[in-house]
Amino acid sequence: MFEKYFALRTKFMRASEIRELLKVIEKRRIISLAGGFPDPHTFPIEDFYDITDAVLKDYGTHALQYSVTRGVSYFRHKLIDFAYKMRGIKVKDLEYILVLSGSQQGLDIIARTLINPGDYVVVELPTYLAALNAFNLSAPNYIGIPMDDYGMRVDILEDRLRGLYSEGKRVKLVYTVPIAHNPAGVTMSYDRRKYLIELASQYDFLVVEDDPYSYLVFENVDVTPLKALDKEDRVIYLSTFSKILAPGLRLGWLIAHPELTDIFERCKQSLDLHTPTFSQYIAAEAIKRGIVDKVIAKAKAIYKRKRDAMLDALVDFFPKNAWWSKPIGGMFVFARLPWNLDTKALLPEAIEKGVAYVPGQSFFVDGSGKNTLRLNFSYPSVKEIRSGIEILGKFFREKAKELGLA
Amino acid sequence: MFEKYFALRTKFMRASEIRELLKVIEKRRIISLAGGFPDPHTFPIEDFYDITDAVLKDYGTHALQYSVTRGVSYFRHKLIDFAYKMRGIKVKDLEYILVLSGSQQGLDIIARTLINPGDYVVVELPTYLAALNAFNLSAPNYIGIPMDDYGMRVDILEDRLRGLYSEGKRVKLVYTVPIAHNPAGVTMSYDRRKYLIELASQYDFLVVEDDPYSYLVFENVDVTPLKALDKEDRVIYLSTFSKILAPGLRLGWLIAHPELTDIFERCKQSLDLHTPTFSQYIAAEAIKRGIVDKVIAKAKAIYKRKRDAMLDALVDFFPKNAWWSKPIGGMFVFARLPWNLDTKALLPEAIEKGVAYVPGQSFFVDGSGKNTLRLNFSYPSVKEIRSGIEILGKFFREKAKELGLA
Repeated sequence: MFEKYFALRTKFMRASEIRELLKVIEKRRIISLAGGFPDPHTFPIEDFYDITDAVLKDYGTHALQYSVTRGVSYFRHKLIDFAYKMRGIKVKDLEYILVLSGSQQGLDIIARTLINPGDYVVVELPTYLAALNAFNLSAPNYIGIPMDDYGMRVDILEDRLRGLYSEGKRVKLVYTVPIAHNPAGVTMSYDRRKYLIELASQYDFLVVEDDPYSYLVFENVDVTPLKALDKEDRVIYLSTFSKILAPGLRLGWLIAHPELTDIFERCKQSLDLHTPTFSQYIAAEAIKRGIVDKVIAKAKAIYKRKRDAMLDALVDFFPKNAWWSKPIGGMFVFARLPWNLDTKALLPEAIEKGVAYVPGQSFFVDGSGKNTLRLNFSYPSVKEIRSGIEILGKFFREKAKELGLA
Repeated sequence: MFEKYFALRTKFMRASEIRELLKVIEKRRIISLAGGFPDPHTFPIEDFYDITDAVLKDYGTHALQYSVTRGVSYFRHKLIDFAYKMRGIKVKDLEYILVLSGSQQGLDIIARTLINPGDYVVVELPTYLAALNAFNLSAPNYIGIPMDDYGMRVDILEDRLRGLYSEGKRVKLVYTVPIAHNPAGVTMSYDRRKYLIELASQYDFLVVEDDPYSYLVFENVDVTPLKALDKEDRVIYLSTFSKILAPGLRLGWLIAHPELTDIFERCKQSLDLHTPTFSQYIAAEAIKRGIVDKVIAKAKAIYKRKRDAMLDALVDFFPKNAWWSKPIGGMFVFARLPWNLDTKALLPEAIEKGVAYVPGQSFFVDGSGKNTLRLNFSYPSVKEIRSGIEILGKFFREKAKELGLA
């Protein structure tokens, strides 16, 4: 009835499969390996009583009033310290920082300010689905670059760049999740990170570094961010407090050259004027009191145990020649079945068996990944993880037999 | 240096003059009649201690976790009651409600989901600047309809509609602030409100009713919302807690037919996933405890006193044949000088004299309003209001003389 009023661009607004799925399973008692929720045991609920009281006491009406679009100065100062302490990123001044209403908003702002319809945008195969949803509204031409255990194949990227440039085309930006990738569960090697920055300079493109998970790495691996290797301000660094404080605050932030943060800020002004002042003061206070450090330490311990449980269960119950990632951190394992099973078509039946996962195909801009799936280990309990993987392993084996594939 | 990467649509992303202005005057001790801030004395800071504690205690980790895009169900239930109690709007069920990250986000979502480039969009002369900024990104064709003391001239609208339809063109939507208009300070009469709804049906367009100020009406005047007169679900009703609780929460909401809230929700998903869960529970608790009623009562008393102070000062100090609105509520008076003075060109000098205002021209899509200005009475003190208007009255008179206009 109302569809005749819809703008043409609504055709790009697909409901996220993951979120639609979550709606279904919310109502049923099943093991969900589908979501991307932090373990609520990591939320510093007791500290929140003190933090909110302190914010109201110390900042009073300022914490409840309108504030500037770029973000509360006090919070941005804290973010400069935080970026250096946690990620070794030296931020010159406050103008390099933009506070976001979740890092999702950063993806939306980047799409609106930097991508024209038809622009070439590089993403990983697979890539983060909500980034595609944000970028889709600007109708880019995607170039998908395969990944292996060491992240994006920058050699393949270089080939593609060379090919495009020989045709007079140029890539506008490369979107990557270098550390503990969602959904792929892999981490880009240091050498590849360095090489990507060199390619950016050589082929004159910008890099969007989406970094929600590096704070939750529990192996002794180099996780230097691209932004710390970036001498030409080509990297737009995006992060969030969703995994290291509380997703319910919807608090993200970015670091970029002031010419970029200026246009981002102007765009954000018409999106939501500014990110909630109260949330910004809460996060600033949580950093100041060491609460974020505490959450990180706790989350690392919990997620390491859960990741181990998932990897053990995969060895015990998944088909021998399946592949899966061995994440050094973050919240996800990505798996590829040895048979040409359609994980999306099988999902309703898996849910009947009592387990949900996210089919992998929608993470691939080239339509591949039909036999892949994303498995979350941050939210379910250790027991649920083991039981869920057991049920799934058995289910996929049966299906492969039924279809004469195994 | 980075401009070559910008998308074409960034040309529509002007920095808001008001916000740029605020940056300048923040650093100086002047009387600002320019902003649109609520009086911080209306913020229930003491109650916030109890509310945040209760939210953490009663909803615990749920208040800090991710939540659904459409909004926390508990909060949406409260909004249904609130809409009926405060505005006489009967909302059928939860699917009609969408929670927003400030009502600004509603304007952005409407622009993205409903406006194609070139679509005809009706706005008032003058209209709310941030609505134009949001709509501009979809490059509509604006039709500006004059206002008088009884709001939008719906007779002129009807003429324009007839003309357009005879050319085979149609209007997609009409954007209006019917009650205590920002910036115009006038209220649409009940008869015009009814007639607008009839025109919507006859000419098949949607109406966006932006209603932040009707909660702050201190005269005994009918303020029935368009939404309560709307039998065909043509009205998208937008409101906010910024003026009746705390703008720092950035909490808005809308009522529309579920086919519309569905597409809005899908759009919002890629904007910020959802509005902060914590803020939603805080507002729900504030409604439940009667805190919102308390804030409204307090704000009405304060703003009535300040409005009276501004109207008295205008009589005492402004040129006799100037026009200004006599608002029944809200936060703004709009004024038109009797001479052809350029209020924008004069602003720096006015700031030198110690008073800031917002030049009116940018509120007019037809480029008129050069000799108009918006005056805010919610934020400055009664003393500042009187003194500010005195300085401005004297300043404009001098300028008119200097230029041989008076």
